[in-house]
Order: sequence, then C-alpha cells, then structure tokens
Amino acid sequence: MALLFSSQADDPVAWTAMLRTAYPDLDIRIWPEVGAVADIDVALVWKYPPGDLARYPNLKLVCSLGAGVDHLLDDPKFPDVALVRIVDPAMTAGMTEFVCAAVLRHHCQFPEFAQYQRERRWMRQNRPPARERVVGILGMGELGRDAATMLQALGFTVIGWARTERKLAGVDTFGGAAGLPAFLARAQILVCLLPLTPATRGILNSALFAQLPRGAALVNVARGAHVVDGDLLAALDAGQLSGATLDVFSPEPLPAGHPFWSHPKIFVTPHVASLTNPRTAAAQIIENIRRFRAGEKLLNQVDRALGY
Amino acid sequence: MALLFSSQADDPVAWTAMLRTAYPDLDIRIWPEVGAVADIDVALVWKYPPGDLARYPNLKLVCSLGAGVDHLLDDPKFPDVALVRIVDPAMTAGMTEFVCAAVLRHHCQFPEFAQYQRERRWMRQNRPPARERVVGILGMGELGRDAATMLQALGFTVIGWARTERKLAGVDTFGGAAGLPAFLARAQILVCLLPLTPATRGILNSALFAQLPRGAALVNVARGAHVVDGDLLAALDAGQLSGATLDVFSPEPLPAGHPFWSHPKIFVTPHVASLTNPRTAAAQIIENIRRFRAGEKLLNQVDRALGY
Repeated sequence: MALLFSSQADDPVAWTAMLRTAYPDLDIRIWPEVGAVADIDVALVWKYPPGDLARYPNLKLVCSLGAGVDHLLDDPKFPDVALVRIVDPAMTAGMTEFVCAAVLRHHCQFPEFAQYQRERRWMRQNRPPARERVVGILGMGELGRDAATMLQALGFTVIGWARTERKLAGVDTFGGAAGLPAFLARAQILVCLLPLTPATRGILNSALFAQLPRGAALVNVARGAHVVDGDLLAALDAGQLSGATLDVFSPEPLPAGHPFWSHPKIFVTPHVASLTNPRTAAAQIIENIRRFRAGEKLLNQVDRALGY
Repeated sequence: MALLFSSQADDPVAWTAMLRTAYPDLDIRIWPEVGAVADIDVALVWKYPPGDLARYPNLKLVCSLGAGVDHLLDDPKFPDVALVRIVDPAMTAGMTEFVCAAVLRHHCQFPEFAQYQRERRWMRQNRPPARERVVGILGMGELGRDAATMLQALGFTVIGWARTERKLAGVDTFGGAAGLPAFLARAQILVCLLPLTPATRGILNSALFAQLPRGAALVNVARGAHVVDGDLLAALDAGQLSGATLDVFSPEPLPAGHPFWSHPKIFVTPHVASLTNPRTAAAQIIENIRRFRAGEKLLNQVDRALGY
C-alpha cells in the first residue's frame, strides 16, 4: 500500500513532510517515480497528467489538493473510485479575505478613483453606505456562506443563490433556475463561488449579465470557465457591468494576448485568491487517509453526478 | 436668536430641510446672507471664510460639520465659544468601510497584481493569512476603535496607539511618545486616524517610517498635514514603505503638479473616505442645539487645548 503524489502545482517536499508527521512510515511515491503501480491505493493529485490515474489497478481513493475537482472530472480516464476534496478552514478564510477585498474595492469605487488619478483629476463623489449595497453570492457552499457572513459583518446587504436553496441567517436566499432572476435583479456586486459543473459552465454570460442592475460589478473567484469571455467584454463595453475583478481564467495562465489583460474595467489577479497550504490543509488529508484505512465514512466526498 | 450656516462644501438646502424637521420655525441664515449679525447665536460651519466668525457678537456655539476641527482652530480669529464636532455612527461606519478596503487592498497585494497586469505577467505569489498581518491604528478615538474592531473581525492582528493609551479587547494598545517605538516596530500596515493637532502635525515623517517593519504600507485617512510629503516619497523610493493609500492631502485639492499623483506606489483618493451626510449627521446637531438652548452639557465638545 503506497500513496501517489502527483501535482505540478504543489510542493512534494512540503506535503511529504506534513504527511510523515502523522504517518512516519508512509510509502510516498512522487510522480513520475511511482515504482510498482500495483502498490498505489491512495493518490493526492492536482495538475497531473490526464489519464495517468488509470494506470493504478489498486487505486481506491483520490484526494484533490484543491477545493474544486472540475479538472479531475474532465479527465475521461478518471477512475471510478472514491474522490474527496479539500475543505480547509484556513483556505476558506483566505478566500473570504480576498472576496471582501474585491467587493470593498468596487464598493469604495477604487477603480474609478484610480482612473481619476491617472488623469490627475480631483473628482469627489459619494457612495451609498454598505447596507444600501446588495452583494449577491452565487454558490452557497462552505466558501459562499463564509464570505456572506463576513460581508454582512462589514454592513453589506447580502443575498445568496445556490442550485438548491441554502438558508443563512440575515441573508435572502434563492434556489435553482426558478430563483435566479429574482436574485440577479438585486445583485449590485455579484460574487461567483460556484463549483464548475456541466450546469454552471458558462453561467456568467450575456443573458445573466442582462438581468443584473445596470452598472453591477462582477467578482469571479471560482473558475474561468464559468465566464463566457466575449459576453463579459460586451457587457463591460456596453456599461451593463461597471467592472470586474477576475482571479480565474480559462485557460490559465491567461494567454499574453488575451483582451482581459488590457481592458480598463477588468482587474486581473493570477489565481491567488486562496492557495492550498500544506501546513493547514494536510490535517484533513491525513484524517481521510485514516478513515479510508479504517473503512469509515470519508470527509468531503465528491458526488460524481453533481460534480462537487 | 438665529443659526448661521456657513460652508462652501455642504449643501445648505439639505441641511436646512433636516434642521427644519426638528425646528420648523428656526431662523436659518445662509452665509453670506447673514442679516443682523447680533441675531446669530449658533453657527454650523465647515469651509468658511477665516475670521468671519469674529463678526457675531452674540455667537455662543459653533458646530463643526466635520469630525475634525483642525482647520477651524487654525483660524486666529476663531471665537472663544463652545465648539462641538460631529461623531456620527454612519460616518464612522463609512470610514471603517474605507479603512477595511484600503487595508485589504494592501494585504491582498492588489497594487503588485495591478503592476503585473500592466506588464501582462502571470506572477503568482502567496500572502500570509490575515492573523499573521499586523495592522497598526494610529489614533484610538471613535474612528480608530471602530476600524480596529472590524479589522479584527476580518482576522487581522490589530494594535493601537493613542496619545494616552486606550484599551480595546483583543488589541495590544500603546500610549504616548514612550509607547510609539514598540507600536511602530510591529505595524505592517499603518492606518492614520489621528486628529490633527500641533502634536501630530508632521508625525508621518522619516523618523517614524524608519521604525516600521521594512516594506510596511501606509493608509492615511486623517489629514494631509500629518504627512511630510517629501519624507513619504523618500521612504517609498527607498523601499522602506511598499505603498500608500492616501485620502487626504495638504493642500486640498491635491495640486495638479504634485508628485503623489503619478507615483507608482501611491493610490490617491480625493478625500472621500467618509463624507458628512446631513441625513444621518443632523440628529446630533439638532440634539446639541436643544442642549445649548436648555443649558445642558453638550455632546462631543472640543477641548481647545488638546485640539479635538
């Protein structure tokens, strides 16, 4: 029984050190030095070679090193074994920090003032208080609910939408396709924290943007493929959207020639809203390995039909 | 008995309407249409002609339309009468929103990512969690304490300094000149919310910047005259400071030729962190007029010796 570590985006040395604090004798194989493929029963993976996981006949558990598993499930040869994803309180806190920073940036009109600064214009304008600004959260899982709670503490009026309605104190919540129009009609700053699934791919498109209040802002910290890039550019250029803070793109890295880089109403950050940190995330991986070995119920197991 | 309204920065129509909701028969004189100067016993003032308040022989109460009264006390002919300033919960909340926006902007490295975007560089870098980022608040009055509380809620480690130490739960507090070095040594993001007094004028100078951790960021939302402009530019150019968000300047408007406008590490906003809003601020003015007429103790009276 051995553990495969296969990620081009994570540090195998740091992860090996963290795992060994719990399992000093754990047989860890760092891809591509996998040894006998029949030994592997658990895999820790992120950016890995598509199809590679089909090589391990005794693989029974895959642990995603990220919160989203969309790119794993995009692999047509992804094995039919248990799949768990990370839900790390420290990563959740990091995401909430970034979401608050991005929402406050739009609320406090920083993009407009940056433009005035470039023009050396002293151009004062007031803003509504946070309670009169409606922030709409698309996706009310762990990340969406935590962000919603902090945005409420900051004074914002927060509303939330999910595939199936998720209640949260003080938040008007909406669910499903039927609930989406009423949600969108109020969302002055729209934050996307959805999982990427066949149902949500391309959800941030012209038809959705058209239902937001004119001049709304978009914050996307979920996946680039939620956005139809051309539709976003059109909505910005038409003034339907006033600005966007984008942390995720399709593909990543964002190609050098992509129009997002130079659009005056788009702020690009390079998928840094919340990075997986082995120091805090390892505990849950370790617990899932323990549960797997003991035959217990796994934490944060992915529903393959739903895609998250 | 009549009330003088004298401000080039506030809307006399909105203020008159708010005051008349409480005092329908109040005799309000809008400068320069002051009528008989002997009638005036109360003045609501902000940007007013220096020396003008010496003209009213029966003036007994001056209400500042802003939270800071430094520019009033700079007037050598300012009369020796009771002076009250505004402490409005809505203005405090607005200031806290802006402070959180500015602190999160530095914490989440938005200035660096904006620079990478201009260069079309996909340059990922992680940041410490908020609890490992120390935000230092200079000035622990109403505004400083409210900002400190919200920054704690956002997860930051918050420390505070004031002329005399002001305790606040969960915040390491420091007081006076003796406490300043220990405070500055920890403040990675320094927020200035001090009143402008002879003791604080020019406090943000080379000697202070040198005591901050290297690469600290500055947020000034107090008064432009707290900053020695040349010292700030030198600290930024030397890398001792990594960036600054400045909402206040000396003089205002910031002159078109001032180097702050074009400095790549300075973000200029035109004194908009929190604007006086008659809708929320009038209640306290009305209450102080009532107390004045009834001979009761005034709210938020300024100590002329301290300057706030």
